[in-house]
Amino acid sequence: PALAQDDDAFYRDMFEPLPALPPIPADNSMTREKIELGKMLFFEPRISSSGVISCATCHNPALGWTDRIPRAVGHLGQEGSRNTPTVLNAGFLEAQFWDGREATLEGQALGPIAADVEMAMDLDQAVARLQEFETYREHFAAAFPDDAEPINADNVAQAIASFERTLNTPNSPFDRYLRGDEGALTEDQIAGMRLFVDVGCASCHNGPVLSDSNYHVFDAPGSEDEGRFVVTGDEADRFAFRTPTLRNVAVTYPYFNNGSVEDLHQAVYMMGDQMLGYEFTDGELDQVVAFLHALTGEMPAITPPALP
Amino acid sequence: PALAQDDDAFYRDMFEPLPALPPIPADNSMTREKIELGKMLFFEPRISSSGVISCATCHNPALGWTDRIPRAVGHLGQEGSRNTPTVLNAGFLEAQFWDGREATLEGQALGPIAADVEMAMDLDQAVARLQEFETYREHFAAAFPDDAEPINADNVAQAIASFERTLNTPNSPFDRYLRGDEGALTEDQIAGMRLFVDVGCASCHNGPVLSDSNYHVFDAPGSEDEGRFVVTGDEADRFAFRTPTLRNVAVTYPYFNNGSVEDLHQAVYMMGDQMLGYEFTDGELDQVVAFLHALTGEMPAITPPALP
Ligand code: HEC
Ligand code: HEC
Ligand code: HEC
Ligand code: HEC
Ligand SMILES: [Ca+2]
Ligand SMILES: [Ca+2]
Ligand SMILES: [Ca+2]
Ligand SMILES: [Mg+2]
Repeated sequence: PALAQDDDAFYRDMFEPLPALPPIPADNSMTREKIELGKMLFFEPRISSSGVISCATCHNPALGWTDRIPRAVGHLGQEGSRNTPTVLNAGFLEAQFWDGREATLEGQALGPIAADVEMAMDLDQAVARLQEFETYREHFAAAFPDDAEPINADNVAQAIASFERTLNTPNSPFDRYLRGDEGALTEDQIAGMRLFVDVGCASCHNGPVLSDSNYHVFDAPGSEDEGRFVVTGDEADRFAFRTPTLRNVAVTYPYFNNGSVEDLHQAVYMMGDQMLGYEFTDGELDQVVAFLHALTGEMPAITPPALP
Repeated sequence: PALAQDDDAFYRDMFEPLPALPPIPADNSMTREKIELGKMLFFEPRISSSGVISCATCHNPALGWTDRIPRAVGHLGQEGSRNTPTVLNAGFLEAQFWDGREATLEGQALGPIAADVEMAMDLDQAVARLQEFETYREHFAAAFPDDAEPINADNVAQAIASFERTLNTPNSPFDRYLRGDEGALTEDQIAGMRLFVDVGCASCHNGPVLSDSNYHVFDAPGSEDEGRFVVTGDEADRFAFRTPTLRNVAVTYPYFNNGSVEDLHQAVYMMGDQMLGYEFTDGELDQVVAFLHALTGEMPAITPPALP
């Protein structure tokens, strides 16, 4: 490409290493007690109507905190229409869901509990079920000491969001490279990083998690999803999707809003083609994919909680 | 009860502390490679036809390696007719399932993959799916170095069984007591242990996991399950169930073959009544239940595997 630069520093400056933590909202300070409670709730299947589906069913720690199937499967085995994004580093995104219909993790957390194709549980019933457990009564009281009735839906959301903000993946080879360890990336990966900038990927995939948290029209194979249009009703948003993070993208296949593409080479090829009118050669594809593999960081070392 | 003895040594001799490992079958030596592979397979949802149900869905590490609902919920949200037993210490049982229809963990492991109400996956298809993954090809080759085609159903069973044999819960207060630490049990727990022997519970609940691995008729509320009779066709076995382990029984509620009883006091009361014609007083029930709580050991510290 025409804009290729020789100076590594130029490329480095286009990116930033992953901070230790995402921004913490002023009205949900992050405490050890909330994180611990949020972890319990994230793994808690008894707030689903079947009693066996938890957040961790679809955002499975064994599978990069996603499910690695095309479209989510939830209550009664129903298949949804969208691919499950990882919750890793989700605290860095400024818009949640493929259509950005929630701004924050707090706003997001109650949706899947109630959604018919996910956990299919009435929220009042979920709260009532939690209230039955002495252990939850203790944990909610410790996490929300100022509340007279601490077990409520808002606090469920606050605790889950606090836990999710701990699910970050620092120290990827790319982060180590950005911090000055030149040997952390292979030559192919460095060439891939340069292509990623030169071809224009970084115009949308930028910031700490390589997402602008903004909406762009994309035609994923077989998708009839209207994307952001469903939220805004704005014609310009029809078939537009929030740019996903590319951190850990090597372990969050399949790709795109409907999980229609399994192969990362193909996903990159389609991005170049549709988003930038650029046709990658096979050699270039290998390099960009090698670069994307360098975005896999250290997975959070979570042992399952002991639920009551 | 008439047979009450004063000598603690008498009661101690009725029991044995949990050994570090259950018996290892001669034809499935336990290797690090098999255990690691078995752990992956235990957490692997893609060998279910929905793609989201694994052994760990029902035998959930966050819930005492069971599901804490009355009857198991599996493929398409279907409810089975039986309560999910924990897999903790299952290697010590000489008969698997409520009806003992399998003798070994190896014999047991493939059943749930194929069962329509559990994972509902054709075994050949499960094996074919595993063969697609480079990582599984490597792990099976390392675990079964003598096999030309190591990814097959038998080896899936061998690996899962090897992993399960590591899921033991040593060092419960009761084990510490049996090893000589007098202070490990409270006075109520010691009184409960004496009652457990004197009333006759230990005639069926004995050996390292407090199960004789034998069959006894019991009428759980609402159960129409014919139990062992389904396997043998023998009239004497109608409504007979294999004695379950009592290790970790405090964390494996609800109780009985159909999960019909939630409260441990009630379960103990019913055992005394039906099995031994003995009616516990409330004070005695508290003591026996206190004793049963002393059977909760150290949970295996398992972090979810990183699946391919
Ligand atoms: C049945 C599967 C399923 C369950 C259960 C589930 N999720 Fe999700 N999750 C999804 C899918 C699918 C999406 C994308 C939906 C969309 O964009 O409309 C999603 C999106 C998200 C997002 C937004 C991530 C992003 O990049 O936009 C977060 C955060 C999240 N889920 C957290 C949770 C929490 C917390 C729970 C439990 C309270 C949960 N999920 C339960 C499937 C599931
Ligand atoms: C105009 C904005 C924009 C540009 C430029 C862009 N992307 Fe994307 N990228 C997106 C959006 C939006 C999606 C989600 C599309 C969807 O799923 O419908 C996406 C999805 C992806 C995915 C799939 C991620 C996942 O988890 O599903 C990959 C990989 C990717 N982009 C890489 C690239 C590469 C490499 C380039 C440069 C060749 C690039 N993108 C250029 C906006 C952009
Ligand atoms: C849908 C829920 C479900 C799934 C999935 C499931 N199990 Fe089970 N498991 C059960 C139930 C219910 C029983 C008792 C069935 C019976 O007795 O007929 C059981 C019994 C067992 C037992 C016998 C324990 C005892 O005390 O007798 C073992 C061991 C076991 N399962 C291991 C596994 C393994 C390994 C897998 C995955 C390959 C698995 N289970 C998948 C629900 C499940
Ligand atoms: C004659 C044999 C026998 C005797 C005696 C016996 N049990 Fe049981 N126990 C069983 C069997 C068989 C079951 C399983 C019954 C079922 O679920 O249908 C069982 C189940 C239990 C359970 C529920 C375990 C679970 O995980 O569901 C508890 C608790 C229990 N027994 C405690 C006791 C106590 C305490 C005594 C003495 C008062 C006792 N048992 C006497 C055979 C016996
Ligand atoms: Ca909201
Ligand atoms: Ca994906
Ligand atoms: Ca049980
Ligand atoms: Mg099209």
